[in-house]
Amino acid sequence: MQVLRTVAELRHLSRALHAAGANTIGLVPTMGALHAGHASLFRAARAGCTHVAISLFVNPTQFGPNEDFGRYPRAFEADCALAESEGADVLFVPTVVELYPNGTDSAFVEVPKLSERLDGASRPGHFRGVTTVVAKLLIAAEPDRAYFGQKDAAQVALLRRMTADLRLATEIVVCPIVRESDGLALSSRNAYLTPAQRAQALILSRTVRHIEFLVAEGERRASMLLAVARAVFATEPEARIDYIALVDWATLEPVEMAVPGTLFAVAAQVGSTRLIDNAILS
Amino acid sequence: MQVLRTVAELRHLSRALHAAGANTIGLVPTMGALHAGHASLFRAARAGCTHVAISLFVNPTQFGPNEDFGRYPRAFEADCALAESEGADVLFVPTVVELYPNGTDSAFVEVPKLSERLDGASRPGHFRGVTTVVAKLLIAAEPDRAYFGQKDAAQVALLRRMTADLRLATEIVVCPIVRESDGLALSSRNAYLTPAQRAQALILSRTVRHIEFLVAEGERRASMLLAVARAVFATEPEARIDYIALVDWATLEPVEMAVPGTLFAVAAQVGSTRLIDNAILS
Repeated sequence: MQVLRTVAELRHLSRALHAAGANTIGLVPTMGALHAGHASLFRAARAGCTHVAISLFVNPTQFGPNEDFGRYPRAFEADCALAESEGADVLFVPTVVELYPNGTDSAFVEVPKLSERLDGASRPGHFRGVTTVVAKLLIAAEPDRAYFGQKDAAQVALLRRMTADLRLATEIVVCPIVRESDGLALSSRNAYLTPAQRAQALILSRTVRHIEFLVAEGERRASMLLAVARAVFATEPEARIDYIALVDWATLEPVEMAVPGTLFAVAAQVGSTRLIDNAILS
Repeated sequence: MQVLRTVAELRHLSRALHAAGANTIGLVPTMGALHAGHASLFRAARAGCTHVAISLFVNPTQFGPNEDFGRYPRAFEADCALAESEGADVLFVPTVVELYPNGTDSAFVEVPKLSERLDGASRPGHFRGVTTVVAKLLIAAEPDRAYFGQKDAAQVALLRRMTADLRLATEIVVCPIVRESDGLALSSRNAYLTPAQRAQALILSRTVRHIEFLVAEGERRASMLLAVARAVFATEPEARIDYIALVDWATLEPVEMAVPGTLFAVAAQVGSTRLIDNAILS
């Protein structure tokens, strides 16, 4: 596994691989602190492409001024070991200056409207930071496919729109949410939770499962589904709802009736930790 | 000369050329209505690259609601003939839908601060439109170099920042202003001028030359240079100043003293036509 630190090296390698013939490159952009959810993305990339590149970059522009950029978990040695054990060919580990040569208040990529919905509403500037850094990574690596987890479902919607709009050549591939045996969606931020908070956090997946069950039973009305979701969620008084929403997965606009492909998404604060979970309804 | 209409075709050709060996691609983005200024860019690309691609696209997002998008000159047949006579290999002529598949209110690229200076101050949204469409063209064509005229000096500053910030692989090459024998800078918009306005428009190049002369004589103080420029400009009462500015060419911020590389730029309205001119001081 090669560890590359500059855009020039990464692009040079990508172009050499593409020029050499039928190679395909799968990029998995991550912020490190890798867990089994990331590993599932690496395996999907390994299965779908001849070469797998993983980026590790805690992107400052997607954190708000009062968010957890400074204390976001970093675990470079363990990340290297996991990436290598999953058969990654390249680990791309740029510095902030490498991706933001003129500072972080520089050229940005934004998807209007979508960037203000769901997490974008409670985290102003978050999605601008995400679309900007992913655009840079796709421009640098020129991958055939880039892999993201469905756990960040709104992010996926933004990135699909961004790549389509900017006419990037990369296909965005979405992989299922990976959960602990009790249902908690894997997240690097789970490391922040105390044992008590870890138990409280189960209300997110419990609410998601409840809504999936109701839809499977035939309930389609958003008003009903959201009312039940709020009622279920309220059974855990220590978790504070940020949003509970039923939206079109492409536009992130609220729907009145759930249809196949509708996104049910929840975000909540447990202690000082913000957690998200969701389901794409079938 | 091949005429291509889709991003997929253009990218496929670019990648095939790059994969085939030591080919270099020069892209000249234009809005058509080609004149000798464009031809000088084609020749520079011809001299610097093995393959030359020219794009013709009147980009709607860089025009304000009360600007001349609808009546901007279009001359496809003449443009084809000029491009072919200058040895272009590819003419890229996308539709609006091809470059804006989700409409024009979609993902955009913006350079903060710079986008509000000079023409950006009087044409809100103009530079966002320019950086967005050029980013798409560079992502589609993956050229080694892209050629722009110094006449749009502020645009050049924005595009250099945009390509550096987004880590695009393309080098921005700037070519000198081409002028009529009486000094008028070539512009597709000169076609709007009546004979009387054509004469009035000479005040722009006359002002620029005057400032170049003063600097050559040793004057460096911005306050003095700008005062003289305004006085010279005022000798043509039919031309209305939009801006007269002495700025750092990289940041577009006003300077107090002219140094080599400082941009002296002027924009003015002659009749209903907005014209610009400038000099990079030596």
